Amino acid sequence: MSNQHSLLLAPPLDTLEWINGTKPLTLAELKGKVVAIHAFQMLCPGCVIHGLPQASSIYELFSKEDVQVIGLHTVFEHHSVMTSEALTAFAHEYRLPFPIAIDRPSDSGAIPHSMANYQMQGTPTLIILDKNGCIRMNHFGRMSDMQVGGVIGRLIEEKSISSNAFEKPESSIDLASHRCGEDGCSI
Amino acid sequence: MSNQHSLLLAPPLDTLEWINGTKPLTLAELKGKVVAIHAFQMLCPGCVIHGLPQASSIYELFSKEDVQVIGLHTVFEHHSVMTSEALTAFAHEYRLPFPIAIDRPSDSGAIPHSMANYQMQGTPTLIILDKNGCIRMNHFGRMSDMQVGGVIGRLIEEKSISSNAFEKPESSIDLASHRCGEDGCSI
Amino acid sequence: MSNQHSLLLAPPLDTLEWINGTKPLTLAELKGKVVAIHAFQMLCPGCVIHGLPQASSIYELFSKEDVQVIGLHTVFEHHSVMTSEALTAFAHEYRLPFPIAIDRPSDSGAIPHSMANYQMQGTPTLIILDKNGCIRMNHFGRMSDMQVGGVIGRLIEEKSISSNAFEKPESSIDLASHRCGEDGCSI
Amino acid sequence: MSNQHSLLLAPPLDTLEWINGTKPLTLAELKGKVVAIHAFQMLCPGCVIHGLPQASSIYELFSKEDVQVIGLHTVFEHHSVMTSEALTAFAHEYRLPFPIAIDRPSDSGAIPHSMANYQMQGTPTLIILDKNGCIRMNHFGRMSDMQVGGVIGRLIEEKSISSNAFEKPESSIDLASHRCGEDGCSI
Repeated sequence: MSNQHSLLLAPPLDTLEWINGTKPLTLAELKGKVVAIHAFQMLCPGCVIHGLPQASSIYELFSKEDVQVIGLHTVFEHHSVMTSEALTAFAHEYRLPFPIAIDRPSDSGAIPHSMANYQMQGTPTLIILDKNGCIRMNHFGRMSDMQVGGVIGRLIEEKSISSNAFEKPESSIDLASHRCGEDGCSI
Repeated sequence: MSNQHSLLLAPPLDTLEWINGTKPLTLAELKGKVVAIHAFQMLCPGCVIHGLPQASSIYELFSKEDVQVIGLHTVFEHHSVMTSEALTAFAHEYRLPFPIAIDRPSDSGAIPHSMANYQMQGTPTLIILDKNGCIRMNHFGRMSDMQVGGVIGRLIEEKSISSNAFEKPESSIDLASHRCGEDGCSI
Repeated sequence: MSNQHSLLLAPPLDTLEWINGTKPLTLAELKGKVVAIHAFQMLCPGCVIHGLPQASSIYELFSKEDVQVIGLHTVFEHHSVMTSEALTAFAHEYRLPFPIAIDRPSDSGAIPHSMANYQMQGTPTLIILDKNGCIRMNHFGRMSDMQVGGVIGRLIEEKSISSNAFEKPESSIDLASHRCGEDGCSI
Repeated sequence: MSNQHSLLLAPPLDTLEWINGTKPLTLAELKGKVVAIHAFQMLCPGCVIHGLPQASSIYELFSKEDVQVIGLHTVFEHHSVMTSEALTAFAHEYRLPFPIAIDRPSDSGAIPHSMANYQMQGTPTLIILDKNGCIRMNHFGRMSDMQVGGVIGRLIEEKSISSNAFEKPESSIDLASHRCGEDGCSI
């Protein structure tokens, strides 16, 4: 995690609505914190069984001063049944403790705006931003809890950096060989 | 499982619709097989995480000649989002392999008809019928796979009985101390 | 489980010693019960992680009147450290609740006597006897809890049979394609 | 992890022998790396089921340049059967990939030397040293993988510090309310 390459500043979240009793958040106001964005769909088994419990563990384990967890509902299939109302019932039944944003649907295709802007490959995707708001990980599929903890631990301890001299996000590696499978739904 | 008491003949399934590519089934035509009815709601965490995988295991493990698995979608909350269309998408994404019936909604209350007729306490509920169509287990909440296997194994081996001399279903014991919790949603 | 073929009457357990606070058992005195023999080694990971917890579940789930669980320590490697004293400490620390027999070592080879007599392929092996003392399953490696429950449930319900018209044990199928791996140690 | 209090420099490991194909390591030569010492007993269920797999995950996940994992066999009970020879067979069967030291037995009591020097409360205990060789965590019992990953991630990223201005190790908190239970064996 030395900072030798250009890092990508995370694009703003383009959202339709925030649910789960929270006011809308902007990435700009979260500068200074590590941000973990868990992109999911409520009918994606890999999200329900692995991704969302992992996001809840991040929320419970790390200090709110250090880490902000955001759920992002990136619906790219079954749009008519994964509605805001359905998501609200889902979040209630699963007792999801963190703020959840609904990705803004596209007028012209299945992929919603934030999902496209972050070049996600499917759900679940875990995106981690450093304290400067730069994308440091963009991972489709399943990651071990220890690996997620390690990445977040490093970014918490990393000093905030004002220069532009950054390394490439890990996404370029992680996204190389993805396929559809039991761990998640690719586009 | 000696047959000393009166057993309850299972009431017919009162269903709105069958999904998952199957023609409607009647309990009458299933006489001679053990029947495992898994009552669930698609937004019930205990069903998604424990109950439905267990029902799929029953389906995969036992011979189709010996055991019929039926999923029963007994919606008693969030009716507006747990629709037939939503359930169809859910069953597709979770690759549920067995026939699924939608319990007939009540005109006058939240509890659908079959759920009421079987006096279920919530979801998940596993109901097991013997080869004569009598209720031999009616269990709300989580059961171990070994216990479920043991009950089904006994009922497969049990000789079909034409008399009315039956024992009481286990439900009377199982249902004694149920409460709301992580394993399921009680009414 | 119809009884069309010749079944093998289980050979007597040839044991050195019984530990875990129990008097020696003979298969002869267990006629009328289903008997589950879990053959293990205390340094076999597949036994410690899967097999022994499963044997404990059998012990806890089924009635003592219906099912007798027996642990059988079949040491075929590392003989000098898997001693009776070591096994006693192991059984104490893991709180194994069932009687445990130590298989009688061979004077001429690594494989102990009962292990050879039952033609076991390695550890863990689960052997299940019916109420007549005949071998109905002889499985090397991992089996699901539901499958084990199903087999035991059927054998509990099966009527004791005095004739010799039995089916072949399942071992002939199960043992076909075994190999060394994480689930167990083959000979 | 700001460094406001005095940190304890880890005492040298007082060992009898190193097994698992490795030459003896000293903490002095590991300065500059984070060191994870997993103290265990081969007959401790909490170690076998949770602690050792976690230590193996640390070994596999983090770069060898950043993190050194050490197993420490701290026998405080059943001394006569948890011998060096038995441990060697155990490490082989469980395929433990990291160097393992045998704690030096005490002449006068059950607790071996390193275990006493580090004031451990039982097994499993996970001790984590920073790059300066100071104790930053000393935890008896079970910790989540995410928490362990987070601590190690922070210490990897933390700059080496030459001053003596350190914070207290977390052990003082962690060790407050330990008791005997399924997660480990306390002294």
